[in-house]
Amino acid sequence: MTAKPSPLVPHHDGSPLHVSNAAPALGETVSVRLRVPADATAADGSSIGQLSWVGTRSNPNREPRFDEASVVATIDGWQWWQADVEVENPVHGYRWLLVGADGRQHWLNQLGLSGTETRDRDDFRLVAHEPAPEWAASSILYQVFPDRFARSAAADARPAPDWAFPAEWDDPQRLDPPYRSGQFYGGDLDGVREKLDHLESLDIDLLYLTPVFPARSNHRYDASTFDHVDDLLGGDDALVRLVEAAHARGIRVIGDLTSNHSGDAHEWFRAAQADPAAAERSFYFFDGEGADAGYESWLGVPSLPKFDWSSSELRRRFIEGPDSVVAKYLQAPFGLDGWRIDVANMTGRLGAADLNAEVRQTIRRTMLDVNPDTILLGESTNDAASDFQGDAWHGAMTYTPFTRPLWSWLLEPGSLGGGGIGFALGRVPTFTGGEFVATHLRFAAEFPWRTRAATMNALDTHDTPRFATNARPGTVPVALGLAATLPGIPVVWAGDEFGLTGEDGEASRTPMPWGTETSPEVAPVLETYRALLRLRREHPVLATGGIRWLAVGDDAVAFIRESTEASVLVFAARAAARLEFDAGALVGLGSAADGADVATALYGDGRLAASEALVHLEADGPSFTAWLLPGVSTPGR
Amino acid sequence: MTAKPSPLVPHHDGSPLHVSNAAPALGETVSVRLRVPADATAADGSSIGQLSWVGTRSNPNREPRFDEASVVATIDGWQWWQADVEVENPVHGYRWLLVGADGRQHWLNQLGLSGTETRDRDDFRLVAHEPAPEWAASSILYQVFPDRFARSAAADARPAPDWAFPAEWDDPQRLDPPYRSGQFYGGDLDGVREKLDHLESLDIDLLYLTPVFPARSNHRYDASTFDHVDDLLGGDDALVRLVEAAHARGIRVIGDLTSNHSGDAHEWFRAAQADPAAAERSFYFFDGEGADAGYESWLGVPSLPKFDWSSSELRRRFIEGPDSVVAKYLQAPFGLDGWRIDVANMTGRLGAADLNAEVRQTIRRTMLDVNPDTILLGESTNDAASDFQGDAWHGAMTYTPFTRPLWSWLLEPGSLGGGGIGFALGRVPTFTGGEFVATHLRFAAEFPWRTRAATMNALDTHDTPRFATNARPGTVPVALGLAATLPGIPVVWAGDEFGLTGEDGEASRTPMPWGTETSPEVAPVLETYRALLRLRREHPVLATGGIRWLAVGDDAVAFIRESTEASVLVFAARAAARLEFDAGALVGLGSAADGADVATALYGDGRLAASEALVHLEADGPSFTAWLLPGVSTPGR
Repeated sequence: MTAKPSPLVPHHDGSPLHVSNAAPALGETVSVRLRVPADATAADGSSIGQLSWVGTRSNPNREPRFDEASVVATIDGWQWWQADVEVENPVHGYRWLLVGADGRQHWLNQLGLSGTETRDRDDFRLVAHEPAPEWAASSILYQVFPDRFARSAAADARPAPDWAFPAEWDDPQRLDPPYRSGQFYGGDLDGVREKLDHLESLDIDLLYLTPVFPARSNHRYDASTFDHVDDLLGGDDALVRLVEAAHARGIRVIGDLTSNHSGDAHEWFRAAQADPAAAERSFYFFDGEGADAGYESWLGVPSLPKFDWSSSELRRRFIEGPDSVVAKYLQAPFGLDGWRIDVANMTGRLGAADLNAEVRQTIRRTMLDVNPDTILLGESTNDAASDFQGDAWHGAMTYTPFTRPLWSWLLEPGSLGGGGIGFALGRVPTFTGGEFVATHLRFAAEFPWRTRAATMNALDTHDTPRFATNARPGTVPVALGLAATLPGIPVVWAGDEFGLTGEDGEASRTPMPWGTETSPEVAPVLETYRALLRLRREHPVLATGGIRWLAVGDDAVAFIRESTEASVLVFAARAAARLEFDAGALVGLGSAADGADVATALYGDGRLAASEALVHLEADGPSFTAWLLPGVSTPGR
Repeated sequence: MTAKPSPLVPHHDGSPLHVSNAAPALGETVSVRLRVPADATAADGSSIGQLSWVGTRSNPNREPRFDEASVVATIDGWQWWQADVEVENPVHGYRWLLVGADGRQHWLNQLGLSGTETRDRDDFRLVAHEPAPEWAASSILYQVFPDRFARSAAADARPAPDWAFPAEWDDPQRLDPPYRSGQFYGGDLDGVREKLDHLESLDIDLLYLTPVFPARSNHRYDASTFDHVDDLLGGDDALVRLVEAAHARGIRVIGDLTSNHSGDAHEWFRAAQADPAAAERSFYFFDGEGADAGYESWLGVPSLPKFDWSSSELRRRFIEGPDSVVAKYLQAPFGLDGWRIDVANMTGRLGAADLNAEVRQTIRRTMLDVNPDTILLGESTNDAASDFQGDAWHGAMTYTPFTRPLWSWLLEPGSLGGGGIGFALGRVPTFTGGEFVATHLRFAAEFPWRTRAATMNALDTHDTPRFATNARPGTVPVALGLAATLPGIPVVWAGDEFGLTGEDGEASRTPMPWGTETSPEVAPVLETYRALLRLRREHPVLATGGIRWLAVGDDAVAFIRESTEASVLVFAARAAARLEFDAGALVGLGSAADGADVATALYGDGRLAASEALVHLEADGPSFTAWLLPGVSTPGR
């Protein structure tokens, strides 16, 4: 299917091409730049024509301020406009206003162009809060569920705990209760350490471990203490060994904390339940005084009692200051490189109480105090925007901007969504490419640029079915290619690179099929993963460059990531497809409009052809293709 | 111009037709209802077809919850679906999900239908905060700027103050400084009292006075004390007399407070400036210790020093508790019925500090304590949504959802926006009817229904040019008709009913031309105002009924306000225009589809004709037309 050639539009995003300082201090002035192509098209499809005024509209202290821009250069026909914006609030929104010679007003925000006034929430944002570490956006993340990843020899000597149903590594999974969370394969942290070669072969540099604290389930989200690492995983020493070995290879390691709840076997909860006078009683929401009083829990699951963050003692023990749990594992001897926080969305929220901002900001402050070179990711699997404005979470583990739209575009129509991924009623709606991109942008638009760059682009996780389960044939490289080339942190949920499937978040926790790497089924999948993650690693523009959407059709989408050093053109198709766009869209790249000569194929078998007027992209079937193009020539600063 | 017939779509809004309880307590269950017409149309224009599942998606504590709905009745072909939603948070968002027999998912939120997942901020909302008084939504507001409204005989005896340039009532305004804010016409509160007949003739029942405290300008936004009413206005006694007289006629009176700043002649500021050790020093942001230290002020205007709300003493004196300024004037002997708060958007915001929520909630709490039957309106002239979720402000004095889109639709192309109204660069963009409605909904959509109902629908105010100045010929009734029939409080800025004009917010503060009421220029305008406000007064459905948009064209728009008792069909045209919509859209009203017989013309000369398939609305030129239709038959509760 051939879509109408996409229009040429003015462009701005939060990347270094367009923003002089992504981590300004409060009160600092940042130069922001807008690129306007000749013959730019308005939101209604008409020509914008000559411009009589261009500038930004900020909203400091919620009162609009306009800063006029001026043309600092015209390069290859594109006008570069620059405005100087003083950052007056920690989250300083701005949008562009372009006024035509005909008096028409065109607004440009994170959602694109509009011919009418737009809402503040869709503004671009400058953020004066402490930024994420520089390595955050360039990370490639690998997610490990310790019980199912790998078992060291030492694991054989450990007796299974009382709650467990021990299984051999090759045993089939049992998804029915009580096996569901009780089936125990006995993977451990030394097992993970022994497989770091595998991670290195995938260019992984960020390892995310789901919880490692003692608990009464295989997933360990029902922690019974945060005081030490589960002996079943090898204890504190095994974590120290793993982190040291990972660091030696340039791989960072983050842990997983449950800030919304503990397990009902947690020492705090047991103390609270046993003695209404205990200090820990204030850590939870009991509905009475007695030892048998009811209590709030996560979605009514009694084994997961909910924390009451109005307790200052809970804050002190768990998240605040150098002696807290949050701090302990970021320091010697552990040296974790950050945290992923479970159920961040519900944390501190109940009825009329909402302490979420205080909790997340306290966690981040503690991390900055004890080990500022750490990352903080929050789980918020739906519309995460309001909590993720840069005051604490660096990025989101969320499914709205990427995972769900991706599934809707690439899964077989009528697929089931399974649990965890959050499709309404568990059904995956079917999207066109246009719906995929629109939904992606709708949920990404409210994130500051830096938050987008540190948000997890996961095909799936330990909480969801595996993407490959119901993917349209041939689309795994398309999905992973998009994860690796859209802004955000590419994520590999351990096992995806072996082609594993799983119908829900439980079934996707399959023990890793070590030894099958060279089998005819696994080898090509593994090679695809290695190649696409290498692509990401070798081209930093994919981590930090700007993004311009070039063309969108039902079955294919195309965009370009851009920096001064290099650009990467991406063409993703779920079926045979052809896209066309104005050759002027690439003029800013130098001589690319002369033809495909300057485009170097990096991956895939899609075809690129350029005439004087149009660039054509064509695919014969599902495919992911990337080309290297020259960097963007910009005016000097 | 004839627009394409508008599609038939499922409908829900926050009105009593669709929500069983608009003021639920936390934890209460509310029944919400969705109306689905036969042959409903999806967001992409296709037919929705049979439904396999309908329900709501709530987001309590930010974790989605689905409540299935069932059909409680089918009336005239419309299915009524009902879901029961427990209100778990003070602001409880929900949206509808309709799943077709074909598996397609259709989301319905305050912006309308979407074929893809939508953002939380566009959800409908149930609000468990204290509601506004019942009379709020049914009020018709009249705004008076005391210096320019009317002068009692007593005013002649008062010497002009030192800052003033006295003027006779018939003197032309001088817009150049220092006359701009210094020209002093000497209107007073007894003058207002003497004109209550006029207000009554307009069906006014809510009088809003801009500030009445002593100051050093004619506008008095630079208060020098909040301790008493300006003697130039007649002092405390005159306010008491005015409120008593107004109450005797069923007219409520609200005042105007500046929570963002005081005047630099304010006793607090003078004390603060004179003595760095004074308690009042903490009320403002001084940048040093000395008497000549600089300080923060409103947009850098030194005569308006900004309050620092981190001062608990400031809170105590001004907004907190029964001895505060906020409380004082709501109690005997004054008995004001509420406050409009100036620059509510900037209040408490500066750099990294944002105490806005605390300040507004404290003001409301104080009001609830001393006089709960009062209204609190906040000025927030741009995108006001985030502050107006029901925790304090009942409604907004804002220009984004109504005033600016209205101007863009009804003013002569190329008009200047003047100051105050907030058009970018002071130019009024020109909208089609579709852009008017889309922009209206975009900014209204984030308000809870009750906030929409208590938000001011102003054609203009004392801060803006007057609408009539550059209105397309014949469109004043269109504009006022929309103010009187869209959800929100209709507003008359004193003088509009005399046909006054004014190019900016200063020029619009013309002394009232008393005595011209029967002149050939004024009489028809006044009659239009009386008739349209009477329409609003006589049909409560216009205050509290639901709203369904029926058809939108470039030059005309049509909607219906609905309740069980009555419905009012509104057709607003800026030029000769014809609209058509599916006759099924009115089937719910009983026999209306049989023709125009059941529609009783209430106002205007537009024409209504109905065939079996379509309803036609036609206007020969600019016109505002309203018809009375039967109420909506609903299933019992």
